Amino acid sequence: MLTIQLENVVRKNAENTERIMRNAIGYVVSNNALGTVIQSTFDNSTSGGITKLISGVLVPTARSAVRDLDTTNDLAFLRIATRKFEYLVAPEKEFTIVVMQ
Amino acid sequence: MLTIQLENVVRKNAENTERIMRNAIGYVVSNNALGTVIQSTFDNSTSGGITKLISGVLVPTARSAVRDLDTTNDLAFLRIATRKFEYLVAPEKEFTIVVMQ
Repeated sequence: MLTIQLENVVRKNAENTERIMRNAIGYVVSNNALGTVIQSTFDNSTSGGITKLISGVLVPTARSAVRDLDTTNDLAFLRIATRKFEYLVAPEKEFTIVVMQ
Repeated sequence: MLTIQLENVVRKNAENTERIMRNAIGYVVSNNALGTVIQSTFDNSTSGGITKLISGVLVPTARSAVRDLDTTNDLAFLRIATRKFEYLVAPEKEFTIVVMQ
């Protein structure tokens, strides 16, 4: 079910996905409810770390901040620029996509 | 001292600042050590909320995640896209600049 939803999102956004992935280092897709990795181009340790720290901690913290500041607002997308690369985070309802570029 | 540093940053980035502010709803500059508002275009309540939740909670959480994932990396910039607008966050050493656009 989740895989079908994910495939639909990827298909609907095929053009954007392709454009993003052209410059990407890699990506991780994780299951929000379970906190598990669904798809990844990284090794287990990196995938798990990104899922835990970004999808599991940072996204909920960002969502809480946005909602606390305006109860009618919600988080749409997160970009974390670092010295070395950028994390692009798309928080969907069932899963979270993190692209490193 | 802090005000001089801030003025230097603004002056050095005058062109970018002007370009950013053209589309901005407003901004808050806060003191990292004290957690206080230095400059703001918003009312006290909004400025305090942004300083507390974004500069005080979200930025340290993002920095920790980035460093935990790669100890030689560091947070450079944060963009929080919401349904209504976007928060652009520049975490400097002494102060944090949050622009809403």
